[in-house]
Amino acid sequence: MSAEKVSVFVIHGPNLHLLGRREPDIYGSLSLEQINRALEEEGRNLGAELSIVQSNHEGEIVELIGDCDDKADALLINPAAYTHTSVAIRDAILAVSSPAVEVHISNIYRREEFRRESLIAPAAAGVIAGFGLDSYLLGLRAAVNLARKT
Amino acid sequence: MSAEKVSVFVIHGPNLHLLGRREPDIYGSLSLEQINRALEEEGRNLGAELSIVQSNHEGEIVELIGDCDDKADALLINPAAYTHTSVAIRDAILAVSSPAVEVHISNIYRREEFRRESLIAPAAAGVIAGFGLDSYLLGLRAAVNLARKT
Amino acid sequence: MSAEKVSVFVIHGPNLHLLGRREPDIYGSLSLEQINRALEEEGRNLGAELSIVQSNHEGEIVELIGDCDDKADALLINPAAYTHTSVAIRDAILAVSSPAVEVHISNIYRREEFRRESLIAPAAAGVIAGFGLDSYLLGLRAAVNLARKT
Amino acid sequence: MSAEKVSVFVIHGPNLHLLGRREPDIYGSLSLEQINRALEEEGRNLGAELSIVQSNHEGEIVELIGDCDDKADALLINPAAYTHTSVAIRDAILAVSSPAVEVHISNIYRREEFRRESLIAPAAAGVIAGFGLDSYLLGLRAAVNLARKT
Amino acid sequence: MSAEKVSVFVIHGPNLHLLGRREPDIYGSLSLEQINRALEEEGRNLGAELSIVQSNHEGEIVELIGDCDDKADALLINPAAYTHTSVAIRDAILAVSSPAVEVHISNIYRREEFRRESLIAPAAAGVIAGFGLDSYLLGLRAAVNLARKT
Amino acid sequence: MSAEKVSVFVIHGPNLHLLGRREPDIYGSLSLEQINRALEEEGRNLGAELSIVQSNHEGEIVELIGDCDDKADALLINPAAYTHTSVAIRDAILAVSSPAVEVHISNIYRREEFRRESLIAPAAAGVIAGFGLDSYLLGLRAAVNLARKT
Amino acid sequence: MSAEKVSVFVIHGPNLHLLGRREPDIYGSLSLEQINRALEEEGRNLGAELSIVQSNHEGEIVELIGDCDDKADALLINPAAYTHTSVAIRDAILAVSSPAVEVHISNIYRREEFRRESLIAPAAAGVIAGFGLDSYLLGLRAAVNLARKT
Amino acid sequence: MSAEKVSVFVIHGPNLHLLGRREPDIYGSLSLEQINRALEEEGRNLGAELSIVQSNHEGEIVELIGDCDDKADALLINPAAYTHTSVAIRDAILAVSSPAVEVHISNIYRREEFRRESLIAPAAAGVIAGFGLDSYLLGLRAAVNLARKT
Amino acid sequence: MSAEKVSVFVIHGPNLHLLGRREPDIYGSLSLEQINRALEEEGRNLGAELSIVQSNHEGEIVELIGDCDDKADALLINPAAYTHTSVAIRDAILAVSSPAVEVHISNIYRREEFRRESLIAPAAAGVIAGFGLDSYLLGLRAAVNLARKT
Amino acid sequence: MSAEKVSVFVIHGPNLHLLGRREPDIYGSLSLEQINRALEEEGRNLGAELSIVQSNHEGEIVELIGDCDDKADALLINPAAYTHTSVAIRDAILAVSSPAVEVHISNIYRREEFRRESLIAPAAAGVIAGFGLDSYLLGLRAAVNLARKT
Amino acid sequence: MSAEKVSVFVIHGPNLHLLGRREPDIYGSLSLEQINRALEEEGRNLGAELSIVQSNHEGEIVELIGDCDDKADALLINPAAYTHTSVAIRDAILAVSSPAVEVHISNIYRREEFRRESLIAPAAAGVIAGFGLDSYLLGLRAAVNLARKT
Amino acid sequence: MSAEKVSVFVIHGPNLHLLGRREPDIYGSLSLEQINRALEEEGRNLGAELSIVQSNHEGEIVELIGDCDDKADALLINPAAYTHTSVAIRDAILAVSSPAVEVHISNIYRREEFRRESLIAPAAAGVIAGFGLDSYLLGLRAAVNLARKT
Repeated sequence: MSAEKVSVFVIHGPNLHLLGRREPDIYGSLSLEQINRALEEEGRNLGAELSIVQSNHEGEIVELIGDCDDKADALLINPAAYTHTSVAIRDAILAVSSPAVEVHISNIYRREEFRRESLIAPAAAGVIAGFGLDSYLLGLRAAVNLARKT
Repeated sequence: MSAEKVSVFVIHGPNLHLLGRREPDIYGSLSLEQINRALEEEGRNLGAELSIVQSNHEGEIVELIGDCDDKADALLINPAAYTHTSVAIRDAILAVSSPAVEVHISNIYRREEFRRESLIAPAAAGVIAGFGLDSYLLGLRAAVNLARKT
Repeated sequence: MSAEKVSVFVIHGPNLHLLGRREPDIYGSLSLEQINRALEEEGRNLGAELSIVQSNHEGEIVELIGDCDDKADALLINPAAYTHTSVAIRDAILAVSSPAVEVHISNIYRREEFRRESLIAPAAAGVIAGFGLDSYLLGLRAAVNLARKT
Repeated sequence: MSAEKVSVFVIHGPNLHLLGRREPDIYGSLSLEQINRALEEEGRNLGAELSIVQSNHEGEIVELIGDCDDKADALLINPAAYTHTSVAIRDAILAVSSPAVEVHISNIYRREEFRRESLIAPAAAGVIAGFGLDSYLLGLRAAVNLARKT
Repeated sequence: MSAEKVSVFVIHGPNLHLLGRREPDIYGSLSLEQINRALEEEGRNLGAELSIVQSNHEGEIVELIGDCDDKADALLINPAAYTHTSVAIRDAILAVSSPAVEVHISNIYRREEFRRESLIAPAAAGVIAGFGLDSYLLGLRAAVNLARKT
Repeated sequence: MSAEKVSVFVIHGPNLHLLGRREPDIYGSLSLEQINRALEEEGRNLGAELSIVQSNHEGEIVELIGDCDDKADALLINPAAYTHTSVAIRDAILAVSSPAVEVHISNIYRREEFRRESLIAPAAAGVIAGFGLDSYLLGLRAAVNLARKT
Repeated sequence: MSAEKVSVFVIHGPNLHLLGRREPDIYGSLSLEQINRALEEEGRNLGAELSIVQSNHEGEIVELIGDCDDKADALLINPAAYTHTSVAIRDAILAVSSPAVEVHISNIYRREEFRRESLIAPAAAGVIAGFGLDSYLLGLRAAVNLARKT
Repeated sequence: MSAEKVSVFVIHGPNLHLLGRREPDIYGSLSLEQINRALEEEGRNLGAELSIVQSNHEGEIVELIGDCDDKADALLINPAAYTHTSVAIRDAILAVSSPAVEVHISNIYRREEFRRESLIAPAAAGVIAGFGLDSYLLGLRAAVNLARKT
Repeated sequence: MSAEKVSVFVIHGPNLHLLGRREPDIYGSLSLEQINRALEEEGRNLGAELSIVQSNHEGEIVELIGDCDDKADALLINPAAYTHTSVAIRDAILAVSSPAVEVHISNIYRREEFRRESLIAPAAAGVIAGFGLDSYLLGLRAAVNLARKT
Repeated sequence: MSAEKVSVFVIHGPNLHLLGRREPDIYGSLSLEQINRALEEEGRNLGAELSIVQSNHEGEIVELIGDCDDKADALLINPAAYTHTSVAIRDAILAVSSPAVEVHISNIYRREEFRRESLIAPAAAGVIAGFGLDSYLLGLRAAVNLARKT
Repeated sequence: MSAEKVSVFVIHGPNLHLLGRREPDIYGSLSLEQINRALEEEGRNLGAELSIVQSNHEGEIVELIGDCDDKADALLINPAAYTHTSVAIRDAILAVSSPAVEVHISNIYRREEFRRESLIAPAAAGVIAGFGLDSYLLGLRAAVNLARKT
Repeated sequence: MSAEKVSVFVIHGPNLHLLGRREPDIYGSLSLEQINRALEEEGRNLGAELSIVQSNHEGEIVELIGDCDDKADALLINPAAYTHTSVAIRDAILAVSSPAVEVHISNIYRREEFRRESLIAPAAAGVIAGFGLDSYLLGLRAAVNLARKT
């Protein structure tokens, strides 16, 4: 496992701009800015350059992923509500060659029935869920390892 | 139930800009402009200030709801086709503290199987369906009362 | 929309005579008598004469609806538990020409799976659910408007 | 097949007192009185004494069937809406020894999904559906034949 | 209801040539010949000319029904096992104008799950099941009445 | 566990007045009177005063339970056929504070599919099924213990 | 895409010999002969020799397809009612190397639930449905192109 | 287990005349003639006289089975595609007294969902699947043993 | 079928801008530009003026369809991933009077379960799937014919 | 009902050795030792000799039940988690002649969906659930009565 | 097909040590010892060395299969109740290279719903069910042939 | 997040002792020993003491978890095949207070239907799947962080 510089594209899905304000018993009290700062610090530790974006638009996320091939070695995505409804994001991930890591802040398997199935997971390299901020940090580590392998 | 001024944010979902032209045997012949004029008149009667928007974009509706907390005491929404497919709009409503009233022009329980289940309803305070223009006017009255209670 | 006098027949379904005592976190602390007094006051405002009855018997409700055609211009019904099990009440509503408005105190879409489907709704003109006492008052308003239209 | 006198107990289920008035495109324009007169005439042709009752109450029908054993050689029943919801009527038919013939005016297999399954049919000797008045007259003939066989 | 001569085409489906030998606790001990003799006698009583055929071939039954329009005023069919699997026979019945009566010797609603759904029933005028030989005789009567009405 | 006098309200559901006559291979040959005598004897042993009623009417059972709060410390109910169809009885049990014990003579888990699910069980304190008369006697013991605990 | 002569085997499934007579609001008023003439004319335009057959027999269609390999470069089939029930025809198409094009006169996706699933489609090269006569003509064009590619 | 001569009727279902040509990665490269020669040789070893037929017609197979009672002591059948769609063949097997052994060349439990359920198996004495030619040879041995036991 | 000029509006759904790069074993190696050139050439042959757009945004597609009525005689749409999730696009097609032809490059009936159901198909005039570029060209022909008929 | 000595075999299933420590809001604070002491005291009252074992191993429980026939007159079992997954324990109970009583500490019908179905119940004589320690004591009483009856 | 010596590992699953005592109308009166003696005799005829074990423990069977690779050329297994619940045994069979033959004494397709699906079958080479002792003897023959082929 | 020493209990479920030999295209070529060495090295980096065990026995895993509370600060478990069938392991995890991290070598959401649902996940703190050896190493890191938080 060499240590050359890799680039990771981080996508936060819908409603995540409200983190901290939104249902804190489920999502914790960290804001998205705090998560992003922690990600960037961990990125520096792992030798990874991060590009981070939040979007509430399914079509915009589709386009971000489609553009990602030329620009990033791996993709770290929290599809949020689109996890359960978007075939388009699944198809976008299948269309690009960079591996994708799917992360969730909460343990989605403990929640409502419709949140237990992910349309994205079969297209992702792997899934990490339930560890709060750690879901993102472990996911970044997994993404960096995948980027170095390919 | 006091009578101080309240603000209500009204959101019309996808295809509602076509009202009057679109399947008039189901949706009636009123245009969206006529509905909005009736809403504003009823708003004046009830001491409510209305802010009205129509959008065909799921992501835009998510952002409108997310922004609503600071600006409106209650939300009146006809999610139209997104009623049955959008977890993102449901999550947005759960993320803000203003109560939401869901309305439908037609009686969705009389229509195709997939139109009988609402992903939004469990996140809303309540639902009104089947009374044409009256669904909106009664929904506004419910929203104003909820705003005054909280 | 003229303002001549109309008559509305109000039917409260099974267990509603226990209101106030019964699961107050779901149904609130108002008694049925308080709801009826509020309905009658709103009826006077709207120029409607009300006839109100509570019954725990499916067959009795069927007969009340069957008799209603000659006596009432519209029907306001909270079918309570029979919402989910009675084809007979649905058929009774279909058999008479007066329009029916279905109301529920609680938001049934937030509760157990079997409470989310209404056998009555496809036979009703429309449905209002989740606003406590307001479900009844808005429902009366909808019923009066329907009576004046037909 | 001998020709001694037999007695048949005829039960009309909920809403059938409204026949003629109720959805005439489905149920035809005959009143219940006309059906009863035709049944009694056909009873005289077949050498059968008829006892006829209509009830909207599930519990009352259960008791009528329970009493039937001592008084009737066969049972002719149109359970109407209770066809699809009453385990109690099914159990009552199983509890008595007189054979039961289930009849329906309309072809229930052509109607809404929930009207296609009969909880009563497995307890009945047989089913006749879709022939209007003829459903009753053919059913009476079947009941008389069953009574003579037992 | 006039009494002019009518012609009825009777079709027995697969395995019915084995009647009497086949599972007698379900289908009784009458042979197909005995059923046909009883049908012809009843036909003479009712002023109907019968044409009777048995076939084990789905395609042949389809063709017999297609030919029936010019030759018969009504159709009496026991589709047997094809009841549950043949869309082709359903389509053939829909393609001709003569009304069809579907009959079954046993009460199919009491048997295995897959025997409780009939693909044919929505295309037929009505269904009679569970009366043994009487299913056929009552069915013939229903067919003759339908023929005279059209 | 003290031994002061307690009162238990016993409700027998639909068709149980036919016990002994009805399907004796499933329900045994004891009559309802014999069960009631055994219950009353066991009641005397346990220091409990019993009030016993049989009803075939869903609405009447709903009202009996609603009235029970003031008069009985616990409820012993065999809902019979209403076990599988009555949301109204479930709601009535939830509406009163006296604990309810649900009993069945036969082992309902060995019977038809639709008899394996109980709508009442989630509202009851517990369930006892399959022990014939003993289901009632053990159920009474459970009810008395629950009454003394509350 | 060269232009050498190709042979196409055309199979019309059950009930299509009734075209024109059969449910004209669904299937149009063209007879099978008119469709065949239009196919042959289009065949001449495309440089294709056609061999056309209609059969109501599942087994016969299975054999026709099995024989087709030696005689035809492509297969054009309207399986009609067998679309939804025949695994045997699906297996026959998989067993031969000539590509098959499945056509339907009506838009089967707009019709009854069971007509929306095709057992044949996964074995066919492609499907065309809903364009009346044009379904056949476009299908022939597709079949010819497939034949020239292989 | 005595060793007297027995007769076994062997039926090959639809498309099996194409064996060897058809999807050889699933069905192997043996032709039906080679399977029949191997069966006849094994028949001689086991003291059984074989009568072998292949048919693509559901109705013909129904008739072959119906005729089998007088002529064969046991039935060996590969229903092929009709395994999953034919209630008629199931009924034919139930109608005759000779025991039937169901065989499949491939392991149907490893294939498409709809191939995993057999309508025939509940009517057969037993099932053997997945052993290629050996499925037939072992099935013949089972059939001979069943014939000697009855 | 006259030959006056018609206009067709062509909409390519999400991820189709990646064609050629994306899963070429499923979607082939043609780019969207090549498809568009072929469509425009065929349009000239057929006397049709084309207006072509690609969008990854559900809301944008909804608006494009809503605007289409005034500008195009027919609609040719490949809804791609939105085929399986968008009620909003279905409603938009129902809201306009121009007929819509739904096309798919791959045979969706051969793919994952969730890709076999189209929410759009019941609103479209017809569907063509599985012929690669030919799906578009045949679909254009169908659209032109529909435009000339209306 | 005589009073001779009987032996009862008591089996506690997986995780019950953790009772008291494990989720006390569901299972109460009694330890398994306290339950066993109460059982033995009640056994002495009822004239029953108890043999008690706890096991976390499905296979071990299968063997304990298989051995039980020679040693015990009845079986009292709390299958715990194996209630919902073990066909092997169900088969073991069916294989022995001693009757089995199934008990549960909590009311399983009020818990997660998968805990509401018992694979064991159809093999047991009866079921008692929801009364805490009393479930065991009433179950022992039922087991002793069953042992004395057989 | 050569005749060199092969070794076969035979595994009997849970409750089979009770054979002969257990539900003899389903499983016959042979004991496991008698089956093993017949297997060993047939093994000698076929030139196969047998190693036989019975286990009630899922984990033990998993380990026996895992060890089998070095010691046996083929596996003969009756998974009994674990057929329907054990993914672990399925995975163990997939993990070793020796082919496995699955056998059942009874025809599992004739029994309760949950016994009709085998989790093991897709991992096995083939399945034999319904022939009593013969299921084992034919299965041994199949296993020996598979061992000689690999 | 302090750095005191923590202890983690690692459990490998059924068939994992075969790793490297077993389906290497799914599970990779690493042996369990290599995974354990990598885990121990990472444990040293993170200041965690590891205790590692592999078991094929459901009951043994239940007991290991039950014992874990006194000995370990966190649990790292790959339940393998028991993921999909064991309620007992789920209950054991719920019974202890140490948090559990569930890991899988392969992306289970890309595999057979029955492997996509985990009975364990709702009881675990979180889930990591699809990263090969990295699933274990990231899971250890998550477990150590959880241990330090509690």
